[in-house]
Amino acid sequence: MKAEIIASGTELLLGEVTDTNTVYIASQLAELGLDLYYVSIVGDNPERFTGVLKTALERSDIVIVTGGLGPTKGDITREVIAGLLGEELAIDPALRQHIIGFFKKLNLSMPINNLKQATLIPSATAMPNPLGSAPGWWVEKNSKIIISLPGPPAEMQTMWQGEVYPRLSQKAESIIVSRTLKTWGLSEAMIDQMVGHFMSCSNPTLALYAKLDGIQLRITAKASDHASADKLISTRENELRAILKEHIWGADKETLEGIVSRLVTGKGLSIASAETFTGGLLSSALAVAPDSNKFFKGGFTVFGNARHNLTASAEQPEKASPEYAAYLAQTARERFRTDIGIGIDGWLENQSGTLTGKAFIAINFPRGNQELVQTYPAGSYQLVRRSVTHAFFSLRQILMDT
Amino acid sequence: MKAEIIASGTELLLGEVTDTNTVYIASQLAELGLDLYYVSIVGDNPERFTGVLKTALERSDIVIVTGGLGPTKGDITREVIAGLLGEELAIDPALRQHIIGFFKKLNLSMPINNLKQATLIPSATAMPNPLGSAPGWWVEKNSKIIISLPGPPAEMQTMWQGEVYPRLSQKAESIIVSRTLKTWGLSEAMIDQMVGHFMSCSNPTLALYAKLDGIQLRITAKASDHASADKLISTRENELRAILKEHIWGADKETLEGIVSRLVTGKGLSIASAETFTGGLLSSALAVAPDSNKFFKGGFTVFGNARHNLTASAEQPEKASPEYAAYLAQTARERFRTDIGIGIDGWLENQSGTLTGKAFIAINFPRGNQELVQTYPAGSYQLVRRSVTHAFFSLRQILMDT
Repeated sequence: MKAEIIASGTELLLGEVTDTNTVYIASQLAELGLDLYYVSIVGDNPERFTGVLKTALERSDIVIVTGGLGPTKGDITREVIAGLLGEELAIDPALRQHIIGFFKKLNLSMPINNLKQATLIPSATAMPNPLGSAPGWWVEKNSKIIISLPGPPAEMQTMWQGEVYPRLSQKAESIIVSRTLKTWGLSEAMIDQMVGHFMSCSNPTLALYAKLDGIQLRITAKASDHASADKLISTRENELRAILKEHIWGADKETLEGIVSRLVTGKGLSIASAETFTGGLLSSALAVAPDSNKFFKGGFTVFGNARHNLTASAEQPEKASPEYAAYLAQTARERFRTDIGIGIDGWLENQSGTLTGKAFIAINFPRGNQELVQTYPAGSYQLVRRSVTHAFFSLRQILMDT
Repeated sequence: MKAEIIASGTELLLGEVTDTNTVYIASQLAELGLDLYYVSIVGDNPERFTGVLKTALERSDIVIVTGGLGPTKGDITREVIAGLLGEELAIDPALRQHIIGFFKKLNLSMPINNLKQATLIPSATAMPNPLGSAPGWWVEKNSKIIISLPGPPAEMQTMWQGEVYPRLSQKAESIIVSRTLKTWGLSEAMIDQMVGHFMSCSNPTLALYAKLDGIQLRITAKASDHASADKLISTRENELRAILKEHIWGADKETLEGIVSRLVTGKGLSIASAETFTGGLLSSALAVAPDSNKFFKGGFTVFGNARHNLTASAEQPEKASPEYAAYLAQTARERFRTDIGIGIDGWLENQSGTLTGKAFIAINFPRGNQELVQTYPAGSYQLVRRSVTHAFFSLRQILMDT
């Protein structure tokens, strides 16, 4: 089955916004084994939008439209679909109630303009939008499917996962299964040297992706049924695990934050943080981890050259050091009376346009256990992010060993 | 004049690579005053690629093609253009010499496959590629222009600036100038109701964009020269400012963080933060603000139900409150001995799938000035982000008033 994407919005044509929805949907379609041959971007102009949609429906079975579902006059996706299919837009009472309820929860009355988000045509069913006021449309007519989703990526992706993916997977002919192994501590080139020979295989395929939480290896198998695909994947996964060993920290949707959360709550432990040049990112990352309320108690940031502010009696180092990281970890643990304290110290330096830096990570653990980790110097603005990821990776290691 | 973009490459349709060339070219075309109505992405398939190029040439004057100029069999842009125009590809001796020289510089002999990069058709002239082996093509035939550029963004942009932009600017008939006004505290629908009547005007146009730091209004004017365009924009801007008043906090590339940084360093003041449910995001945002080293001294996060941890003697409220936010702001200021303390308290609640919450923001200022701001309850996971933005917005207000 052939799918096609239309990204709508004049802002995309003016170069004001990068269309990130298309790459997301494209990779999802590949996973579903649906062929994607064409993507179009079109502005909020009824004639041109209608023309693009008409062409798409002529050459593809499924057309996915993003954007144009907002409450303003410039949001014309509903009108364009209705016009092309020759159907009338009408306000759906249930949708109307839902949108009024959406605003009511916010203690707001619904602006009259939002009412157009409650409209449907006879061929369309609404798909709920948990994050916004614009429901999506699933339209089936003349053996063609039009899927209309809102433009904001968070809303689009939530609806894709909850509504669109399950429905499309029932339409797909062969099964594509993927498994992603997540690593930390090896560069893309190093992994390429270690497992590159698998990358010329066609089933399963292997691809590498550099992400902020490390290099990911994606194994993808195509088969007529799930069991056969799973078997292809497991065989390759075992081979990769034998080579990459402890560098693999998780798979698929697992996150380091999620793993740490599970380990730490399972042991009934609590965590506090203290950091310098990461500026609060460690604290933020702990706070957004799953179930953070159960284990994260708080943290502090000492920024700039203000290390002396921490306690009156403390020494006043001017330079980042492993010792100061250890001191931060211990102080965090004491101040917030937690089981574990994490400290990050370090510096960033702009050397003729290139950011370099170094991070020191310390983890203060029950019964005096203490681990001191020093990250590689990184020539990238991502050092701050990497230091935090490294702290989670180290914490996971310690929690698994105890 | 109408321009159109075709991004070619099967990797774009598989969702493996984000097409960043299009947003770059689109913003450049807007600057040149060339209308961009359509963008297409197509894979390395000769029939489909030819079809897309044919359609583009029928409806546009200038077609810009990115990608497909490499040395492999999958790189078919030259063949597709030649085929559609009915012209023969032939090796150009000068290009051949140039490519051999390119490899020689790298101490490599030229792989025979690269020879196809030395081909031209009669209607094409070559555009040099300073960063790679693939020259671009500038094709003129039947009053249409085809511009073929390599896919790697660095090569494409260098050639755009050096070759394409200068040639296109001679063809452009009019100038396009834009100005973006940034607001806080009004919803998209509210702004639409207040200024929506301007959105049906064609010159200047007005468009709304919902961003994490508020709703933006973009005014775009088309004119024969800069002064006329500026005048159109200023007139509309004044009208909008009269309606939206203090909700407008900045314009164009300004950020709230940048404005606060400028104001606070200009007055020689320093800032500390204290927060609860935002988990460190306020601290992070201050830390990544421009010149943060000059004014941000540090902050602390009190997370979960751990409010009592802050000081032994403090009261121990269980619920978020404006009073606790004020207490946080004051404590931050005292602890880090700064001029300004910012406190955020609040809560998030998951009510049958919808996140709702409330934030209290307090700013403790020199000489006892104190402002207490209470944000709207927000039905979105973005409340945390919004609270931090709101804190910056309030701080800007206070700094401007003193």
